[in-house]
Amino acid sequence: MYWEDVAAGTRRELGSYTFTQDEIVRFARKYDPQPFHVDPEAAQRSIFGGIVASGWHTAAIWMKLAIADRQKPGNASPLMRAGVSPGYQDMRWLKPVRPGTRLTYSSEVVGKTELKSRRDVAIVLTLNEARDDAGELFFSFIGKGLVQRRPR
Amino acid sequence: MYWEDVAAGTRRELGSYTFTQDEIVRFARKYDPQPFHVDPEAAQRSIFGGIVASGWHTAAIWMKLAIADRQKPGNASPLMRAGVSPGYQDMRWLKPVRPGTRLTYSSEVVGKTELKSRRDVAIVLTLNEARDDAGELFFSFIGKGLVQRRPR
Repeated sequence: MYWEDVAAGTRRELGSYTFTQDEIVRFARKYDPQPFHVDPEAAQRSIFGGIVASGWHTAAIWMKLAIADRQKPGNASPLMRAGVSPGYQDMRWLKPVRPGTRLTYSSEVVGKTELKSRRDVAIVLTLNEARDDAGELFFSFIGKGLVQRRPR
Repeated sequence: MYWEDVAAGTRRELGSYTFTQDEIVRFARKYDPQPFHVDPEAAQRSIFGGIVASGWHTAAIWMKLAIADRQKPGNASPLMRAGVSPGYQDMRWLKPVRPGTRLTYSSEVVGKTELKSRRDVAIVLTLNEARDDAGELFFSFIGKGLVQRRPR
């Protein structure tokens, strides 16, 4: 699938992930050792009232599911990259992710932009979201992906 | 330190981190198993010409260093949060991070905003960067942090 074939409005479900306390603590010990991520006792006394996942953990799971989705046989995902991603915009963590929370991640094409500087790739903008089983929004960001253009 | 005490223009070095191939592969196997992150042979044939770190890994190390900096005795960091971070803006991965790359992360206060909805906290905007020993910029983003206001 080339950039020309990506249709704005296309929405994919990337998959679901249930956060366990073990995994929340394991990630946070390494990368985000704040008391409310790593210490159940201290977390109870924090403003969260219990263990919550690091925001970077919630984000990393998006990547994990996006890659798994991309690697499904026959799947030509518009998330495919042709190089370093130019970046992400507007990352928001809206609700704390607690142990047992199951989030379903989705990605929707919200824009397409050509590049002046390159003819071989162009940009696809995606709105990425993670929602729980009740449909509540926990995490979102706008992704910018470089996608290959149809050779001419 | 309260929001009122945070001075725009204040810049902190958060610390340095050297990415090893082992750690790059370990992180990516879990969260970002693309060939150029996890498979040295395949990475050589990729556009990167070798193993590079997942962008989420580079970001997670920022968090790791920011927390370590915050926990230094006597350090009243303006990165302190009073709740869920409202989000991050404009995340950019500008150069591939290869094994052996040492990045030094910094955070500079670039703005302060009051909130209409809350009197107890207000927003500090930070420009966060990671540069190698030659000063080349590899990673940057704008962070929005909630900081407690001086009680009145």
